[in-house]
Amino acid sequence: MTISKRQLNLNVGINTTGYLANAWRYRTGTRHDINDPDYYRRLTELAHKGLFDAVFFSDHPALMTDPNGRPFHTIDPLILCTALAAQVPDIGFVATMSSTYNSPYNLARRTQSTDIISGGRLIINIVSSFNPNVAANFGAEPLPPRSERYAKASEFLDVAKQLWSSWDPAREGDIPENRFWDAATAQAIDHAGDYFTVKGPLNVPVGPQGHPVIAQAGASESGIELAARHGEIIYCNILSRAAGQAFGKKVRDRAIELGRDPSGIRIVPGLVAILGETRAEALRKHELFSGAGSEDGLLARFVKDNDIDPHGFDPDAILETERFIPDPNRIQAVGMGLGLSDLLAHEKLTARQAVRRSEGHHRLVLGTPEEIADSIVDLWADGTVDGYTLQPPRAPDDIEEFIDKVIPVLQKRGVYRTSYEERTIRDRYGLPNPFRSNGNSRAF
Amino acid sequence: MTISKRQLNLNVGINTTGYLANAWRYRTGTRHDINDPDYYRRLTELAHKGLFDAVFFSDHPALMTDPNGRPFHTIDPLILCTALAAQVPDIGFVATMSSTYNSPYNLARRTQSTDIISGGRLIINIVSSFNPNVAANFGAEPLPPRSERYAKASEFLDVAKQLWSSWDPAREGDIPENRFWDAATAQAIDHAGDYFTVKGPLNVPVGPQGHPVIAQAGASESGIELAARHGEIIYCNILSRAAGQAFGKKVRDRAIELGRDPSGIRIVPGLVAILGETRAEALRKHELFSGAGSEDGLLARFVKDNDIDPHGFDPDAILETERFIPDPNRIQAVGMGLGLSDLLAHEKLTARQAVRRSEGHHRLVLGTPEEIADSIVDLWADGTVDGYTLQPPRAPDDIEEFIDKVIPVLQKRGVYRTSYEERTIRDRYGLPNPFRSNGNSRAF
Repeated sequence: MTISKRQLNLNVGINTTGYLANAWRYRTGTRHDINDPDYYRRLTELAHKGLFDAVFFSDHPALMTDPNGRPFHTIDPLILCTALAAQVPDIGFVATMSSTYNSPYNLARRTQSTDIISGGRLIINIVSSFNPNVAANFGAEPLPPRSERYAKASEFLDVAKQLWSSWDPAREGDIPENRFWDAATAQAIDHAGDYFTVKGPLNVPVGPQGHPVIAQAGASESGIELAARHGEIIYCNILSRAAGQAFGKKVRDRAIELGRDPSGIRIVPGLVAILGETRAEALRKHELFSGAGSEDGLLARFVKDNDIDPHGFDPDAILETERFIPDPNRIQAVGMGLGLSDLLAHEKLTARQAVRRSEGHHRLVLGTPEEIADSIVDLWADGTVDGYTLQPPRAPDDIEEFIDKVIPVLQKRGVYRTSYEERTIRDRYGLPNPFRSNGNSRAF
Repeated sequence: MTISKRQLNLNVGINTTGYLANAWRYRTGTRHDINDPDYYRRLTELAHKGLFDAVFFSDHPALMTDPNGRPFHTIDPLILCTALAAQVPDIGFVATMSSTYNSPYNLARRTQSTDIISGGRLIINIVSSFNPNVAANFGAEPLPPRSERYAKASEFLDVAKQLWSSWDPAREGDIPENRFWDAATAQAIDHAGDYFTVKGPLNVPVGPQGHPVIAQAGASESGIELAARHGEIIYCNILSRAAGQAFGKKVRDRAIELGRDPSGIRIVPGLVAILGETRAEALRKHELFSGAGSEDGLLARFVKDNDIDPHGFDPDAILETERFIPDPNRIQAVGMGLGLSDLLAHEKLTARQAVRRSEGHHRLVLGTPEEIADSIVDLWADGTVDGYTLQPPRAPDDIEEFIDKVIPVLQKRGVYRTSYEERTIRDRYGLPNPFRSNGNSRAF
């Protein structure tokens, strides 16, 4: 691995018609794209042209059947990423999967298989699932409480890491001519914990990245604990410098407490970028793509989403922070709701200002390509973030626009690659190989 | 679908170095092939050149760690088949997976995803798992008893079939301009059975084959029940015409009792073919590839495998059938052991003859390309079998030889295709689409 200048990391989400539920009305393409593997190939080729680190698939193993919504999670992400990896070189793949509704052996095996097949291009985004619709597809039991789901997720990854390193051909000694292999390269893990009993070894060997890169989302207390312990790429919602720095410090401090080197953590939050020839055009596109239709519509949605009494509401009054702290016991992903309260904890904002700072829970940047590039570099330059996971309102349109107009600006500023260099995603993110650091292949 | 002349169906197994554990000493390639995705791509391209219906991957989710053996099941079969489908056109894929250690929702989703991505080229071989090593990778509980595993497998496939048809875009009505989709195309299945409670709908729509073709192995009583109920392609070991006809009748009669049209069942047993310029050369290769070394070695293995007292054993005396009926309670897959007893029930054979009739539990055919072709056509012509799943002792060598020497003979006799015609595996096997037969997309 060569020592290279710090670079901006960029992933791009390519679920169905794009990130924003209402933006499909303004996109190129047909409604049938969402289940067409060739559509995802074209999006991945586009992302490859933009030299993105990886394409990102969020996921729930359930069909959301709201007639006014749209199916957002369809073809299995790991299966789709496996096919795409066989079709498109270089680029990485973030596949989201549930630690609550998978077994560690099967998941460790499948993901290591895809990592081997892709030549070390897999990132797995482990989520503990929060939706009762998901639980109902996996038995009569309700969703376990959050604390249990996260404890289980943590042990799940402990087991997976043991399995991923349990068969290492690099341990091979001399093999007599009449034998096919050195069976001592594979060792049982004999794990017996609170949630899992797994003998091993895994029947897939150590992969090109040691194991797939582990991404982790969720900013609740349990989410931060899991991120600090296992997360290599943290996908989160960071709406301001102060909030981002506080979040990063929290995760890294906790990692140190757990005895982990925090230099193996990358913070790559979501970002919604809407471009215009002018800022005014970008604001107008935001009103349309969000489905709100106008600035008044955005304000009305804000009032409704935050349970504010509309009578006497002043969109130009400074908002009170306490009003926006989410209930930690609610069913929705808690971490996703923290963005706004974190933002307001550090900045005095009116509702009129706040509605232009986030969309779909993520940081919203609006303006000309130069302005967008400024906003991206701003939080990256001082290390608040290591990069972004672009969540384009419309696919393919907003990916194309970003590649045509923003990427060249980032390249001109010298913060973004002009070609793919590193072979694995782990190397591209400058993350350590988990099993090789001490010359001891089982250390992690 | 056009009505076409009955054709011989041929699949080919491509696990690791080939089917026979000891034949690797005589093969082309390196030991590292077994975990190299490119090796499997080359084998699949080779199988494509031979116009095989499908490549076949058997599987156990466990690493067999015998130092004198070899790892035989490594990269996850469905993941591998998904990548191969993106690289090689036309050919189908048989991926083996366990109904005991998967959840119906995830498995139905993943397999339908691969079927969509491959354009309708997936066959799933559902096994209930019989190995305690497998159980130990999935918890502290021992392997459930066979009857429970098969009952669970049957309900598993009932659930999967409901899920596979639960979201059908063909049901779409008029969609108002401001809506993305017709949510009525997706219906919950609300399954609550003995083993599974699953709400649905699946978040992947009906695929190009309705659902993936279902293969089923296992000839125990429970295995036959499952085959009759759900199997479309039956992978089994049939060593003679009489045994094959008895087996086929049993499965089809049971299907009729269950109200199923038996014309949707194809019998495609395993076949080990060893070619020589002369029959003598083929016999010699059999002795080497089997690891026995000589005919005496084959006889010694026979004596040992069948727990026969070697003192006074006469290899040229007619064997007694009763002696070879396997214990139905043993741990090994019962169906695999039935081949020899079924053979002896219909033919009077000595041990010297019997050792040349099967290898690795499957029918063994030895001789010149013409003799091999004769043996294959023999049981196919009268419908005893619909084709074979070739299990080459060595990969790639015995696949190459078969394609170069036997395929042209089969083509000259007019029983085997000269190009790929049908798009899906279902059409290639002449199997009905499970959801379209009555114009009712949910009928199956």
